[in-house]
Amino acid sequence: MAQRTAVAIIGAGPAGLLLSQLLHQAGIDCVVLERRSRAHVEGRIRAGVLEQGTVDLLDRAGVAGRLRREGLVHEGFRLALDSRLFRIDLRERTGGSAVTVYGQTEVTHDLIEAHLARGADLLFEATDVALRGTNGDAPVVTFLRNGSEHRLRCDYVVGCDGFHGVCRASIPRDALQGFERVYPFGWLGILADVPPCDHELIYSNHARGFALASMRSPTRSRYYVQVPLDTTLDDWPDERIWDELALRLGPKAAANMTPGPAIEKSIAPLRSFVAEPMRHGRLFLAGDAAHIVPPTGAKGLNLAASDVAMLADALIARYHGGSEQALDGYSDRALGRVWKAERFSWWLTGLTHRFPDMDGFARRMQMAELDYIRQSPAAQKVLAENYVGLPLPCG
Amino acid sequence: MAQRTAVAIIGAGPAGLLLSQLLHQAGIDCVVLERRSRAHVEGRIRAGVLEQGTVDLLDRAGVAGRLRREGLVHEGFRLALDSRLFRIDLRERTGGSAVTVYGQTEVTHDLIEAHLARGADLLFEATDVALRGTNGDAPVVTFLRNGSEHRLRCDYVVGCDGFHGVCRASIPRDALQGFERVYPFGWLGILADVPPCDHELIYSNHARGFALASMRSPTRSRYYVQVPLDTTLDDWPDERIWDELALRLGPKAAANMTPGPAIEKSIAPLRSFVAEPMRHGRLFLAGDAAHIVPPTGAKGLNLAASDVAMLADALIARYHGGSEQALDGYSDRALGRVWKAERFSWWLTGLTHRFPDMDGFARRMQMAELDYIRQSPAAQKVLAENYVGLPLPCG
Repeated sequence: MAQRTAVAIIGAGPAGLLLSQLLHQAGIDCVVLERRSRAHVEGRIRAGVLEQGTVDLLDRAGVAGRLRREGLVHEGFRLALDSRLFRIDLRERTGGSAVTVYGQTEVTHDLIEAHLARGADLLFEATDVALRGTNGDAPVVTFLRNGSEHRLRCDYVVGCDGFHGVCRASIPRDALQGFERVYPFGWLGILADVPPCDHELIYSNHARGFALASMRSPTRSRYYVQVPLDTTLDDWPDERIWDELALRLGPKAAANMTPGPAIEKSIAPLRSFVAEPMRHGRLFLAGDAAHIVPPTGAKGLNLAASDVAMLADALIARYHGGSEQALDGYSDRALGRVWKAERFSWWLTGLTHRFPDMDGFARRMQMAELDYIRQSPAAQKVLAENYVGLPLPCG
Repeated sequence: MAQRTAVAIIGAGPAGLLLSQLLHQAGIDCVVLERRSRAHVEGRIRAGVLEQGTVDLLDRAGVAGRLRREGLVHEGFRLALDSRLFRIDLRERTGGSAVTVYGQTEVTHDLIEAHLARGADLLFEATDVALRGTNGDAPVVTFLRNGSEHRLRCDYVVGCDGFHGVCRASIPRDALQGFERVYPFGWLGILADVPPCDHELIYSNHARGFALASMRSPTRSRYYVQVPLDTTLDDWPDERIWDELALRLGPKAAANMTPGPAIEKSIAPLRSFVAEPMRHGRLFLAGDAAHIVPPTGAKGLNLAASDVAMLADALIARYHGGSEQALDGYSDRALGRVWKAERFSWWLTGLTHRFPDMDGFARRMQMAELDYIRQSPAAQKVLAENYVGLPLPCG
């Protein structure tokens, strides 16, 4: 079967769905292809802290109704060094900005609902996606669905298919430059239907390793502990996780912590990665397809959103104004913001984690920096303005 | 020969001389012992950027007359990434602070003059200094001078004798904890009687390595280039240094640079080092005897001055008020500031130098951070408030 669209979007995560939604609003035809089932996509547990710019973009896309009702606005968070906590006041330090706690899985759900409500071309279980002719004038995306082969002709392909997706992999190796940092530890996450230990997040640098107290709602907690790379979930019965959290978050947080059975547990490695450029011919990359951040600082989903904001505007300029100039500038513009968020995520990871090869000097550098941040309003402002999200670069 | 004093100060660098001057003003008897000759001490070329707090302290010590006349007040400096320069406005970002360019060798000269003018106990060429009984109630310093052996009894000994001095070395190994970072490069410095290329300093991160354009006066320039550890001065005829500086500082600075014959050239390794605590019994350490910073950020002399400010006040409290409480708090209080300056110096070194094992990701982190600082007033404020000097911790 053959079909034609303006923009073929590969991947129905938040990046692909949000782009599709923004293009639809602008009257630009697009099709979203997703390898997995809807249930699988909605079941993935991911990050949950949205920058103001991401919230605004979801609002613009018309999918922020439930987010506005159920999302938790956080005006600050806490940093801890060996159980001594201090607060970063986001609202005060940034002159009015905050973040919103709302699970990525909820964002994805809301976007899928919006697509289904308007009968959009959102095709789940579209497998064996292959790209052809993206370096010429007439790209074609082929895929299998319901046992038959499909051909989708389009003007542009957008890869929103994540780090392991087909899109970046289809770009010739010599046309991309990759930058990578792999961290010598992972994050063990536990999700439980218990009230959070604090109404704000706590990032703790403890001699036993990093811990993060987070949440998805007033009744659903999300906690993380830094773990060695060679550990497995078998090593971590729920009780051991709660005990470890209590130690690393300190007595005050521990006293308010409600342990409960895990409804999800997982171990994720930490990685920094950027591919340059974020375009090859008529193929554009957005979100995890082009770059990965370690989860410290919660930049992954937010970077995907800012990529999509810039790419949507560039595609709208192309279809409404006729010029490819904004599309030509997309990669440089997006990378300008990506690298700053990569730097922030790498820095915050380095500030808060225990590294296996860390000597006394490196530990003292962490302690001195945390103590400096505790005392300096300027340093708190730097942390806060990065945490709520830097502005989009000029177009 | 035997003698008695209240405070025996080992080392006639700026730390020892400034402490002696402050104690003298408070009517506290002290003796300064220096291994080298006056000519040697005054001939050492060292740093030349004074924090406001250091200038104020020299003023308080009554030795800032010439400094006030001849010192160059710098209200900003420039940072460069591959020849693209931007300015950090110290005055604006800190709400009024600045630094003063005035060579350490001039500070030392002024302090020596003040000592000689009042006939102070400042003994040059006092060799073979040894400390006895510093862990008890009656310390004794022995030394050789003019061929005879001397014994100096005192209440306290202060080690201002630098990284390689006898004082820290005389503390039992298990009573001190050392923290160290050795950098995989050195600084080649050139001093020349030529006008500086700019009226402010330029710190340049260039693909060929770090460079710094500095000065001692309107007619005396001081430049540095990052060099490998295995290089020697033989590899660096003057002409090669000027050529390298022109490349690393960029075309604009190069156009204003006046090459000229070196009146001093040297290669210095870069090191971060802190010994904890800064006290053992009746022996106190101040300045380089307790800690070393890499020269990036010019914190060495300024840290020595803030150590001395805290130690002088503690000794004055002891002799005028009778309490050792402030002396007991000296090490913790000094280390609080030392570690923040160590962190700043380590960070600024990491931001501006080329490391031999640096991969593309690390280079991009430098570029992203410099670009972020260029754009963020908050990040400029953090840099500026550290550069002009953090306040002394509460006593």
